[in-house]
Amino acid sequence: MKIFVLGGDGFCGWPTSLHLSKLGHDVTIIDNLSRRNIDNELEAGSLTPIRPMGTRLKTWQEGTGRTLRYENLDIASNYHRLLTLIGEQRPDAIIHFAEQRAAPYSMKSSWHKRYTVNNNLNATHNTLAAIVESGVDVHLVHLGTMGVYGYGTAGMKIPEGYLPIEVTTDDGEKIRQEILYPANPGSIYHMTKTQDQLFFAYYAKNDGLRITDLHQGIVWGTNTVDTMADERLINRFDYDGDYGTVLNRFLMQAAVGYPLTVHGTGGQTRAFIHIQDTVRCLQLAVENPPERGERVKILNQMTETHRVRDLAQLVADTTGATIEHVPNPRKEDAENELHVKNDLFLDLGLEPTTLQQGLLDEVTNIARHYAHRANLDKIPCTSTWTREQRPGAPQAAPRHKETV
Amino acid sequence: MKIFVLGGDGFCGWPTSLHLSKLGHDVTIIDNLSRRNIDNELEAGSLTPIRPMGTRLKTWQEGTGRTLRYENLDIASNYHRLLTLIGEQRPDAIIHFAEQRAAPYSMKSSWHKRYTVNNNLNATHNTLAAIVESGVDVHLVHLGTMGVYGYGTAGMKIPEGYLPIEVTTDDGEKIRQEILYPANPGSIYHMTKTQDQLFFAYYAKNDGLRITDLHQGIVWGTNTVDTMADERLINRFDYDGDYGTVLNRFLMQAAVGYPLTVHGTGGQTRAFIHIQDTVRCLQLAVENPPERGERVKILNQMTETHRVRDLAQLVADTTGATIEHVPNPRKEDAENELHVKNDLFLDLGLEPTTLQQGLLDEVTNIARHYAHRANLDKIPCTSTWTREQRPGAPQAAPRHKETV
Repeated sequence: MKIFVLGGDGFCGWPTSLHLSKLGHDVTIIDNLSRRNIDNELEAGSLTPIRPMGTRLKTWQEGTGRTLRYENLDIASNYHRLLTLIGEQRPDAIIHFAEQRAAPYSMKSSWHKRYTVNNNLNATHNTLAAIVESGVDVHLVHLGTMGVYGYGTAGMKIPEGYLPIEVTTDDGEKIRQEILYPANPGSIYHMTKTQDQLFFAYYAKNDGLRITDLHQGIVWGTNTVDTMADERLINRFDYDGDYGTVLNRFLMQAAVGYPLTVHGTGGQTRAFIHIQDTVRCLQLAVENPPERGERVKILNQMTETHRVRDLAQLVADTTGATIEHVPNPRKEDAENELHVKNDLFLDLGLEPTTLQQGLLDEVTNIARHYAHRANLDKIPCTSTWTREQRPGAPQAAPRHKETV
Repeated sequence: MKIFVLGGDGFCGWPTSLHLSKLGHDVTIIDNLSRRNIDNELEAGSLTPIRPMGTRLKTWQEGTGRTLRYENLDIASNYHRLLTLIGEQRPDAIIHFAEQRAAPYSMKSSWHKRYTVNNNLNATHNTLAAIVESGVDVHLVHLGTMGVYGYGTAGMKIPEGYLPIEVTTDDGEKIRQEILYPANPGSIYHMTKTQDQLFFAYYAKNDGLRITDLHQGIVWGTNTVDTMADERLINRFDYDGDYGTVLNRFLMQAAVGYPLTVHGTGGQTRAFIHIQDTVRCLQLAVENPPERGERVKILNQMTETHRVRDLAQLVADTTGATIEHVPNPRKEDAENELHVKNDLFLDLGLEPTTLQQGLLDEVTNIARHYAHRANLDKIPCTSTWTREQRPGAPQAAPRHKETV
């Protein structure tokens, strides 16, 4: 298959590109390197030493004999170049990771809110409009988030995208319907993904586009078998307060001797998936497209749920790290239950990689190996959801040596 | 009250600005004149001779002694100027009409789809982000559309924004909830309004913004008592295939001797409201804001529903015009029922101006009076929803003299 990977330089996009290339697909990465540029803005960076795209591609070519193509292109603003690429290359599938993906970054200021909205919505809509204008029958696979559902349910498992409901007519008759699960986003970033859903529903209905939307949980781990093959293929490891995600942050904090920063009570329950399963899910999604005219195919891309404070305790127990409950910079429920259906991927053959000591140790070892690259000042989450929230910083945080 | 009217040069915005000014409110119009610029692009224009903003403001000042302020500003792109205005003027309310509002225009090409998405979503989001950043407790009143609901129901009246549903838990228990009515937009334009709803829900939840969203039906009529006071205050009258709306188009077609262009069977049932009621509803909405912390207040701004072919027959019966069933350029159900609740405005004291011969004659007279300004070539709706639809043009249409 010919596959475009929009955002193929990022944390999920890079290992997905390698995985699909290894399977023999013809992969073109399209990326404007925005994630690396945001590192510059935040004066933060990947704990792991990710290489420039040129080195990545050359290393992959040398190691596997396979060629990854690359186009540096901002799909949110350069519509016509995207359209031309689709028309010329006629891809079978486009995988769309090309959105600003950090909730805290999206809440830092009005500029960051506006950037996230403008970038994410135009990127998604340009892709849809270009597919229609090109006339090419492309299968679009989009990386969404479990966060579109929100984290409160009425006591049922969160279904995969669509919720069966009953409404009462004026005659008192009850009618069963199935609707897009009512959106309840927890940040500007999550909100853009709920708006993406409306783009997808419309283009599937009006233009018969074939679209798969993957509602992914929080990704943990850093490497896949492909990115581990050569250090020059190494994947990103974000630990900073904006882009780092909870389990990876705890493992890194343990590795560098920083208290595990639990936001609030740590009663938040979230869905998780290992990065190796992410790339496997993307493969399964690409290989199993919906039919033309079908509604958007929505799958929950997660393998397990955990409560944040339980994860902190697990990491503390095995590493000896201390736990510190810090203010929650987010406006969210302090505690929630979460039960999620993920039958669709299990039916397609996914064998979940669940939380296990070996993989946790692997992440901790990587964090230890590159601990000298860490800037401890970048660990606290300083982006607050409103003026009332406080940064998630420990009382007396260990500090980065350069600035002490 | 100090009120900003975003889009105050447009068809609804201009008479609303006059109405609120006459009531003694301090009104600032903010508009980038995009609607007039689109006239240039389409080589079409208002049937009525609308005057430049400078003339409009001077005439209003001379006739009433009241001053309307005006800022030429693109709120979708010039965020910082908008923020400064809110911070300096500290308005009590902002009325937001500043979106591209024609469904056919939004479907003309990928450029028009992308312009509508980019303009409408950034305009709405910039306004919300600026209100939060300013710290001013502004009541935002947004003009939405009945089209967010779609035009199929399960046999009940369309409620005002929120739908009571029942969901079944894993234990088999039934739980009642109230959700935002599931969106089912019929064009890119309508889609942006469904995405606006998600902006509003999020900002009401996270930032406690006070927001009213008005789901308006199709507006008919052209003048209000205020725009009739002086010809230099005259309101727009759109009759072209992109911006003209159905009843006004029929009345104009009858006035100039053009067949009444019924799309498809004319079985579409739609909600309607007279322009005089629009301005009255805006007044009621501004005077009755939600509390801080309340969910978004949603009202259906319509007074009656009619089937399109019945309207055509009514106009034909009273004017002698002929009816022609033309291809439907839209992808939509050929026939639908529509029942809508509008109790909230009735409870606030709205006395509906329903379809009556006197008002229909008034519109026809205006159309006859300015018939010499009509370009008949601009009447057919040439914007098609997909490549499969055909333009809504009569078999042998009367033609504009200049081009014959």
